[in-house]
Amino acid sequence: NSARNYGISLGVLSPGEWNAITDVPGVAVGHATLLEGTQVRTGVTAILPHQENLFQMKVPAAVYVGNGFGKLAGSTQIQELGNLESPIVLTNTLSVAAGMEGILDYMLFLEGNEEVGSLNAVVGETNDGYLNDIRGRHVRPEHVVEAIKKAKNGPVREGNVGAGTGTVCFGFKGGIGTSSRKLPANLGGYTVGVLVQSNFGGVLQIAGQPVGKILGQYSFRNQLESADGSCMIVVATDAPVDSRNLERIAKRAMMGLARTGGIASNGSGDYVIAFSTARQLLASPATVTPLDNGAVTPLFLAAIEATEEAIINSLFAAEDMKGKNGRQVKALPKERVRQLFLE
Amino acid sequence: NSARNYGISLGVLSPGEWNAITDVPGVAVGHATLLEGTQVRTGVTAILPHQENLFQMKVPAAVYVGNGFGKLAGSTQIQELGNLESPIVLTNTLSVAAGMEGILDYMLFLEGNEEVGSLNAVVGETNDGYLNDIRGRHVRPEHVVEAIKKAKNGPVREGNVGAGTGTVCFGFKGGIGTSSRKLPANLGGYTVGVLVQSNFGGVLQIAGQPVGKILGQYSFRNQLESADGSCMIVVATDAPVDSRNLERIAKRAMMGLARTGGIASNGSGDYVIAFSTARQLLASPATVTPLDNGAVTPLFLAAIEATEEAIINSLFAAEDMKGKNGRQVKALPKERVRQLFLE
Amino acid sequence: NSARNYGISLGVLSPGEWNAITDVPGVAVGHATLLEGTQVRTGVTAILPHQENLFQMKVPAAVYVGNGFGKLAGSTQIQELGNLESPIVLTNTLSVAAGMEGILDYMLFLEGNEEVGSLNAVVGETNDGYLNDIRGRHVRPEHVVEAIKKAKNGPVREGNVGAGTGTVCFGFKGGIGTSSRKLPANLGGYTVGVLVQSNFGGVLQIAGQPVGKILGQYSFRNQLESADGSCMIVVATDAPVDSRNLERIAKRAMMGLARTGGIASNGSGDYVIAFSTARQLLASPATVTPLDNGAVTPLFLAAIEATEEAIINSLFAAEDMKGKNGRQVKALPKERVRQLFLE
Amino acid sequence: NSARNYGISLGVLSPGEWNAITDVPGVAVGHATLLEGTQVRTGVTAILPHQENLFQMKVPAAVYVGNGFGKLAGSTQIQELGNLESPIVLTNTLSVAAGMEGILDYMLFLEGNEEVGSLNAVVGETNDGYLNDIRGRHVRPEHVVEAIKKAKNGPVREGNVGAGTGTVCFGFKGGIGTSSRKLPANLGGYTVGVLVQSNFGGVLQIAGQPVGKILGQYSFRNQLESADGSCMIVVATDAPVDSRNLERIAKRAMMGLARTGGIASNGSGDYVIAFSTARQLLASPATVTPLDNGAVTPLFLAAIEATEEAIINSLFAAEDMKGKNGRQVKALPKERVRQLFLE
Repeated sequence: NSARNYGISLGVLSPGEWNAITDVPGVAVGHATLLEGTQVRTGVTAILPHQENLFQMKVPAAVYVGNGFGKLAGSTQIQELGNLESPIVLTNTLSVAAGMEGILDYMLFLEGNEEVGSLNAVVGETNDGYLNDIRGRHVRPEHVVEAIKKAKNGPVREGNVGAGTGTVCFGFKGGIGTSSRKLPANLGGYTVGVLVQSNFGGVLQIAGQPVGKILGQYSFRNQLESADGSCMIVVATDAPVDSRNLERIAKRAMMGLARTGGIASNGSGDYVIAFSTARQLLASPATVTPLDNGAVTPLFLAAIEATEEAIINSLFAAEDMKGKNGRQVKALPKERVRQLFLE
Repeated sequence: NSARNYGISLGVLSPGEWNAITDVPGVAVGHATLLEGTQVRTGVTAILPHQENLFQMKVPAAVYVGNGFGKLAGSTQIQELGNLESPIVLTNTLSVAAGMEGILDYMLFLEGNEEVGSLNAVVGETNDGYLNDIRGRHVRPEHVVEAIKKAKNGPVREGNVGAGTGTVCFGFKGGIGTSSRKLPANLGGYTVGVLVQSNFGGVLQIAGQPVGKILGQYSFRNQLESADGSCMIVVATDAPVDSRNLERIAKRAMMGLARTGGIASNGSGDYVIAFSTARQLLASPATVTPLDNGAVTPLFLAAIEATEEAIINSLFAAEDMKGKNGRQVKALPKERVRQLFLE
Repeated sequence: NSARNYGISLGVLSPGEWNAITDVPGVAVGHATLLEGTQVRTGVTAILPHQENLFQMKVPAAVYVGNGFGKLAGSTQIQELGNLESPIVLTNTLSVAAGMEGILDYMLFLEGNEEVGSLNAVVGETNDGYLNDIRGRHVRPEHVVEAIKKAKNGPVREGNVGAGTGTVCFGFKGGIGTSSRKLPANLGGYTVGVLVQSNFGGVLQIAGQPVGKILGQYSFRNQLESADGSCMIVVATDAPVDSRNLERIAKRAMMGLARTGGIASNGSGDYVIAFSTARQLLASPATVTPLDNGAVTPLFLAAIEATEEAIINSLFAAEDMKGKNGRQVKALPKERVRQLFLE
Repeated sequence: NSARNYGISLGVLSPGEWNAITDVPGVAVGHATLLEGTQVRTGVTAILPHQENLFQMKVPAAVYVGNGFGKLAGSTQIQELGNLESPIVLTNTLSVAAGMEGILDYMLFLEGNEEVGSLNAVVGETNDGYLNDIRGRHVRPEHVVEAIKKAKNGPVREGNVGAGTGTVCFGFKGGIGTSSRKLPANLGGYTVGVLVQSNFGGVLQIAGQPVGKILGQYSFRNQLESADGSCMIVVATDAPVDSRNLERIAKRAMMGLARTGGIASNGSGDYVIAFSTARQLLASPATVTPLDNGAVTPLFLAAIEATEEAIINSLFAAEDMKGKNGRQVKALPKERVRQLFLE
């Protein structure tokens, strides 16, 4: 279930095979979904740049803060050292500590890490407290380990899964979404993949159509609704880009979010974590050299388009969800949206 | 000549009286246009938060760097001190020094500034070298003084004027554009105005319509065209916001640019300068208190919408221009675009 | 046990009553110390801007990253919103998650916080793995709650206590240290207090004396010793300064560290968290107005001096410590240092 | 005339041959000094990473803003692209525009630059208005070209020369100062050189001795003196470090300033520009690989020590100066300081 299945295509570049972050060779994604009783609607999604020992084989990385009303763990070390040494874990706002403990439980005991006494666990979150009993802190470290261990290449489950189980986006059910772009050979042939945890507001646009306006559902419509909420965005590429250019790519992901009608409200925790799988850049001496500035613009466009489409895909993949205190959030009315594009 | 005259409206908030940055009370804009012979197509645009002595009555301000391949003068002092003490001058890339000299020529000799030995001149630029003999450095300090002195409230000339005389945007003639949003009373009633100098590439979207794609004119179409170029963005508001929240507002302007299809390419100098006219915030002691974080989201949305529309307006207002070495850049085919919106 | 007791005074400004961060009215400090068997040498130190409900009565705050090889939790939200809504907890590198859980355990259940579903827990750390079994993750959330609950005004225990139990500084036993400066009335009369968790290397200077050189103990002496290690620095003031000027004050704390001979090595996690207790600045509308830029320089000097002295005090207060695997770290030879100052 | 000539040595690393920024192979420095009549006491100092066409052979670079009350031109492009493409020019506050024009006059007409229409001129400044008729804007572009053309390798003139002609530091005559450190071979053998334009206040320390206090001359002594003023710092190295690690090195220069007793007052424009002469890092593909994070700490220490000593050297080299309106500033009483170190 993606926008393309409904005949809606976004941007001018082409997606990779799975239209997923896993189109970047080596990248793996795993989910642990907590759907328990009537109150628990949450989970964990783990993104791994590769499936070997990440602490021993770090990858170049960067963080860009779109709006920092959030609890992202691990950002300053990525920014200082320009690398990532742990899986990226997404979960809910009050479970960041569980996310960190889970990463440590997994990483500290990998072969080769017996003496490791410092590890930068990277955990992002959005607040699923509308549908989920967030104060119950139901995510435990073992769920995090589960998501990491389940991570695999190939197609990625989207919508009400993992860290997207309980999220809400533009007033519709949000969730996990993913997309990718593969550059033509003469622009380098690199792939950029994006995965999002969508949980924010604004005035929804799909491929430019003011869907939110048409459906009468958008922030500030009645000058009382909030646009708050957050979006975690993970960008992967196999292009050999160093941390400085990864930060620039990360910045463009927020431009993709803007194209969906997001506004990065005061209450949003919109963070972008970007990494390159070209870990040879960090070898000593490095065995590849980083792309120079002049070659990165196509990667910018790819990051914008893949982010836009990943968010839209999260809406197309998500389904109606009933949760905490009997609250219900409807999925995007996909058939109606399809009609808008036929008119 | 604005998008609204062609029946195209953008966003969900309403513009102010002039749909211009001058809808923010006190803000004045002036242009000096250099159209000389066949080679000179450049100029100066000055934006003044108020028309009294700015050094003596500074205003709260912030700068956000969308992409820093540019020569903006004055940014670090604004960022450090959170205030603006000079007119904002826009011109071409090789005339930033002339812009600074012009500001000094004007400001140092204002009554009350007789002892001033340090003044932070703020000058932005984009590169109009395709149509203009930029290496000739034709802008002189006196043109800058002229633009400052001509600054006035009310309607603002757009298109091929001042610093927009020679710019190109999405492959069409760009230029100066402006727009504004006035919040409803229950969201504070504040006005946000934006003025842009548009000179960048990407894949043009107008109100969501993929106009660039439809017209067959966009970056990377043939994997050889550049998306380079820049956009200077000035955001004004009468809301009493301090420098921290002004920076957050400035950041949102790049989201407005994203909605037009801009991608902030490697070669772009995309800068946003935001100021509040509430200079009482800087009184000692301050006689008003800054808006708190919870009240700024509507200003974010206003900045996004006004930036998007200011860029689109720059395209609607610009006209065909012939310049350096016989080069010609066509204006946006407005009638054809109007038809797209009727279909 | 402080440098002043040994006749060594630093700087030109005078300390407050306790020469401690608690000289800033309302600030409270609490420790939980874990000294178990032969292997556990760690703990928790909590710093509270006031002892009411911090989530409901946030204080202005800022973070400055001296060097970001560390796991500080909560930084991006402080930077975005300019406020602090939790106690600041210091502990060891692998116990940051426990620190966050402890803060949530304490804060979520305070009266008035029944509906809170998002809370920015601020936890800093340094690596005490030389003396402590850090991989054992012995700090638990209940220790964090204990430190918070024990927090009190007045004199502060320094040295081998709380988060300083197992740290090492300049090759001597480090730990918790604190100091303060009270400005003369005509410079505002404000107090600046600093608390550090010292755990770093370099070439020790005390009041300018090259003690490290004289004692033959400094980084790179044999071109093989590491200068790595970290320093967490908390700066408090009762001056009504907003987040922008708090960030500037925080930056100066690193200049105080520099005066002790610290070099912020690649492997250091040197972070400064600064807050003002003037929570009235965040009232809506604010009932006090922030100090303007022109008034902050004396606060800069105070932050520099108090940081320098807090670090030196951590060395004077610390005592010999035996820990993990029989390792031992000696305290600064205080009598010998006293002699240096008599010569 | 340097501190070492007076028997005062700083730090634990050794200087290079000239104890100057020019110890970094290829780096050249040139001055143009304006000493005219009784009122003009200013000038220009140019620092060149190499003496070929810098626009065509850019070098890796970074900027760190210690305190941004200054008018540094060119910072955002260095930060975005991580490179430097012009000489670095230092001058007075109101002559930054002249500095930029001079750079353009020189660079645009170099062989190979015939089509260049965008060039990032880097100009720093401090305010010499106490001794110099700064409002007269006596520095002209031709003085800038002169300084660039005169630039040479080898020993560097210090004190009252070039951009240091009219500056004041710690209440004594300041000026240009320089120093270097050469790492031992087993730490890489690289050289770090620093040049400063010293013009700031605080409480002078020399090699730890509280000279300012002893001589009774320091900021806030009478609670009325200002510590304002600025320091421009240029750091060069031949180590192959990329822009991210150059920024970290730049940050350490402020720690060197701190060791002299500087406090980076509100009114200071303290900027550090760091570059590597390893331009092969920017080749495409790069022909060397950047140092990894683990190798940079010795460069940090070298930058701290060389900055400290460069500032102290500026004081030792400067001589009494009489200037604007009959004002006079005395040099540091060097003999008296020498005595302090003998006692």
